[in-house]
Amino acid sequence: MSLDHRPDAGALGHVLTDVLHAPTLLSTLPPHAAYDADLQRQVLEGAAEFVGGVIAPLTRVGDEVGARFEAGKVTMPPGFREAYQAFWKDGWPALAHAEEDGGQGLPIVLEMALYEMLSAANHGWTMAPGLLTGAYETLKHHGDATVKSLFLPKLATGEWLATMCLTEPHAGSDLGLVRTKATPQPGPNGATHRLDGGKIFISGGEHDLTDNIVHLVLARLPDAPPGPKGLSLFVVPKCMPDGSRNGAHCDRIEEKMGLHGSPTCVMRFEDAAGWLVGEAGKGLGAMFIMMNAARLHVALQGIGLLEAAHQRATAYSLERRQMRAPGARDTSLIAEHPAMRRILGTQRAWIDCGRVLAYHTALELEVSHAHPDAARREAASRWCALATPIMKSAFTDQGFAGASACLQVFGGHGYVREWGIEQVVRDARVAMIYEGTNEIQALDLLQRKVLPDGGAALAGALEGLVALPAERQRFAVLTGLAGRITQAATTRVDLPAWVADDFLRACAVALLAWAGTRLAAAPGGGDERWQAPLRALRAWVLPEFEMRVRIIEDRLAAST
Amino acid sequence: MSLDHRPDAGALGHVLTDVLHAPTLLSTLPPHAAYDADLQRQVLEGAAEFVGGVIAPLTRVGDEVGARFEAGKVTMPPGFREAYQAFWKDGWPALAHAEEDGGQGLPIVLEMALYEMLSAANHGWTMAPGLLTGAYETLKHHGDATVKSLFLPKLATGEWLATMCLTEPHAGSDLGLVRTKATPQPGPNGATHRLDGGKIFISGGEHDLTDNIVHLVLARLPDAPPGPKGLSLFVVPKCMPDGSRNGAHCDRIEEKMGLHGSPTCVMRFEDAAGWLVGEAGKGLGAMFIMMNAARLHVALQGIGLLEAAHQRATAYSLERRQMRAPGARDTSLIAEHPAMRRILGTQRAWIDCGRVLAYHTALELEVSHAHPDAARREAASRWCALATPIMKSAFTDQGFAGASACLQVFGGHGYVREWGIEQVVRDARVAMIYEGTNEIQALDLLQRKVLPDGGAALAGALEGLVALPAERQRFAVLTGLAGRITQAATTRVDLPAWVADDFLRACAVALLAWAGTRLAAAPGGGDERWQAPLRALRAWVLPEFEMRVRIIEDRLAAST
Repeated sequence: MSLDHRPDAGALGHVLTDVLHAPTLLSTLPPHAAYDADLQRQVLEGAAEFVGGVIAPLTRVGDEVGARFEAGKVTMPPGFREAYQAFWKDGWPALAHAEEDGGQGLPIVLEMALYEMLSAANHGWTMAPGLLTGAYETLKHHGDATVKSLFLPKLATGEWLATMCLTEPHAGSDLGLVRTKATPQPGPNGATHRLDGGKIFISGGEHDLTDNIVHLVLARLPDAPPGPKGLSLFVVPKCMPDGSRNGAHCDRIEEKMGLHGSPTCVMRFEDAAGWLVGEAGKGLGAMFIMMNAARLHVALQGIGLLEAAHQRATAYSLERRQMRAPGARDTSLIAEHPAMRRILGTQRAWIDCGRVLAYHTALELEVSHAHPDAARREAASRWCALATPIMKSAFTDQGFAGASACLQVFGGHGYVREWGIEQVVRDARVAMIYEGTNEIQALDLLQRKVLPDGGAALAGALEGLVALPAERQRFAVLTGLAGRITQAATTRVDLPAWVADDFLRACAVALLAWAGTRLAAAPGGGDERWQAPLRALRAWVLPEFEMRVRIIEDRLAAST
Repeated sequence: MSLDHRPDAGALGHVLTDVLHAPTLLSTLPPHAAYDADLQRQVLEGAAEFVGGVIAPLTRVGDEVGARFEAGKVTMPPGFREAYQAFWKDGWPALAHAEEDGGQGLPIVLEMALYEMLSAANHGWTMAPGLLTGAYETLKHHGDATVKSLFLPKLATGEWLATMCLTEPHAGSDLGLVRTKATPQPGPNGATHRLDGGKIFISGGEHDLTDNIVHLVLARLPDAPPGPKGLSLFVVPKCMPDGSRNGAHCDRIEEKMGLHGSPTCVMRFEDAAGWLVGEAGKGLGAMFIMMNAARLHVALQGIGLLEAAHQRATAYSLERRQMRAPGARDTSLIAEHPAMRRILGTQRAWIDCGRVLAYHTALELEVSHAHPDAARREAASRWCALATPIMKSAFTDQGFAGASACLQVFGGHGYVREWGIEQVVRDARVAMIYEGTNEIQALDLLQRKVLPDGGAALAGALEGLVALPAERQRFAVLTGLAGRITQAATTRVDLPAWVADDFLRACAVALLAWAGTRLAAAPGGGDERWQAPLRALRAWVLPEFEMRVRIIEDRLAAST
């Protein structure tokens, strides 16, 4: 049994082509008129080969050796730099970046597939390029000519890596509390501001993968108002264009539960030269425009990690014999015991149906950028705004809980390092926290996206789906609840916060069921490969829907 | 904020005295006629002081330094040996051992409380004495005069520690596959057998806490039949009575997800001298007699770890301010946000109600040993047989899932070592596996204990509880399902294995609800301290009951 993850390009291709008709849809968008199933297959297979061959074998060394800090420098685990250099030189990080910037101009859905494979193969390593596209897009859309000329080309290709410097010790989920100071002050190479302050939880704040690191830093100008509206965004490179070292220092890295291959840095900006990106006071907005793509990436990390766990547990269950399964005459493979089949089948259902939802959303994200029809773009945007927090929360919760369930398949062997499954569990835990904790996703969904129009946008998005009567009925329950919560919240301001988690989970399960039907309706959907997870979905995932609805109804019926 | 766990003797005392009337009940048992609330309070307070003062401060060093292996020897983390020496010299491990053996003869419920505190304070350290009482009882009940004279006194006081050597690389849950050989052969000091074979996952197989380690080893005699009936039990000391080293060697220790303070040893028995314990071929039975107590211990580890996580998360939530809670004008404490209140309230409910159930069962265990009335002893035994797998599975599942929920309260700070919460999550994971995986608990409950008599024993046990109509109704649903599963299983042999997990969870939730009502009915039960968790139980724990029932009903209704 190989312990390295092997990406399954075929399963992803099936979802993209047979279920979602991605080639047909994408070729209707002007930037991707030449896109077809052949190109898609080549990219997926190439990605699977690179990820499986180069990145997956570095998972364990990433965990066991980990990133090492000494005297301000971070040494990455053996092999990490070489792998990253091959990664960017082969063009992988630039897959969906604009051709005019040196990218390949491919649709974002392929970048999502690449990163799902990467997260499954080696979550720690994948953190390094994880924020690159977000930084590239931020500078592309908000940077002025100087900023673009200095930083965009090397971010576009991935020759340099990037960070997002948001969190401070006292400012986690609440970025309005950020204190890092930006002072207008001309600096070397035309820098416009001086940055001073401390940031924490900066993934890849320092490393030896690339010759330069470009920090996007949220900071406060001298005359800025308190709160989120006082925040501006700055680009602060580790090395200045003239080659000198800038005042961006890594003071230490965190000891973490997992993700040891990714240095989580405590950063100190001291007399650091920076350039304003976008307008003063609009820093949060400049970063948040990237939010849907970033959160969709994290949702797919959940799927990827679940796939990694499922692959390991399946292989183990087909090797190990213990006790007799019901009706068997002799010792059975673990894979034959109902309790193990249930664990594996349930995760398979989440992965398969989750992919349909996630890649459908990635396609809608592309549509929201590139469709010729403004109304269609608008509808796609609304879908992404609603679906993304649902998936970020539900898929990363399942990434952790499902990986832990897969660990159980190994019995005592799962708790030791030997098979690599406990690393998946430890690595997966962080995805429930970053890019907005899962509780914040639930508030974002209900309070910001569903309640403001009494559930109308939600109803519109769900009505846009081709669905069976049972699915429609669940959608109707959700929109009905949205209306009642809106109503009740006028007098009970805390109500939405109490039921936000349940509402999100109910949406997730209802959408998974819809996704399952799409799988079944696709060519080959009647095969056992796709039918078995659907049975698991119906038996063990769907019953949560009614439970969540009941919890919300009970809260609505209560006096407080 | 102190990072060390502080045991709450008062809360345990409330459950024991005010809810379960332990002093009254115990004083009706001849061995504990002198037991009273004062004695109980003194022991609980003394235990809390020792555990909080001596054991809790060693948690982090246990995790970070861990047990170290070199050349066959295991060095325990700094401070572990001193703490253990103080522990046994103060009489703690002998709390419930017989006075005639040098113990204190106190009821097992106090030992359970001590170990709940210990597990919460330092799960890794607690593994060392964790099997001591089981080994003591096994030798006391099954050892012959020689075995007792050689080993019992020092196991009774805890001057020596003990292991259970069951698992082999190919024999985990399925002990029938054990291959270690026992050959009748007179040895030094009157040893009767020679042992040869390899064992894995031996907690505390080697360490420097005590001068000797007593291994209880499951092995197969030359003429033994294959399978579980061919297994005999042997006692194999690390050091022989004459002081010479026996052939029990530690070849390495495992790298684990957590529990670094407990060495998990790969043991090699080579020409090792041993003594048969009990009859040949009855090795499993001799060990399994200790099973209910051992599993109840593990159930309480789940509660203890949940309490440790809850205590840390509560303290953090009362220190940290982020964003505004609904209706607040300014940044709120994390503790004021509904999502956080829900996480903390749910765990509080599991801990409080879980304790009622667990200590009720510990009292029944005592009754099953010491009540003058045989029928009462028998009924108590039946309760323990049914309740123990339910609690072992449900409480350790919640220990892990709830600790992970508590980690979420810390946001990104939870994923780093700083606050100690991620260690609780990693440590807690193992309890879902050992002493029989949680899936095996579910099979044990349904297939071995509920179905053989069509649910009659279950019905009897539940009828014996003082309960409200809503609780009775849930009990009736459970016994009704038991009957229908029994019926259906006559033609569908695999049915019980498919629904065993759901049946166990439904039982667990129904019993938690019953326990909650006991809490509410006790003196002071109307206080917010006890009412708040009950509201959490009703809102977020109880709805699982109907979901589980629905899953079972759907499976019953299905054709396969």
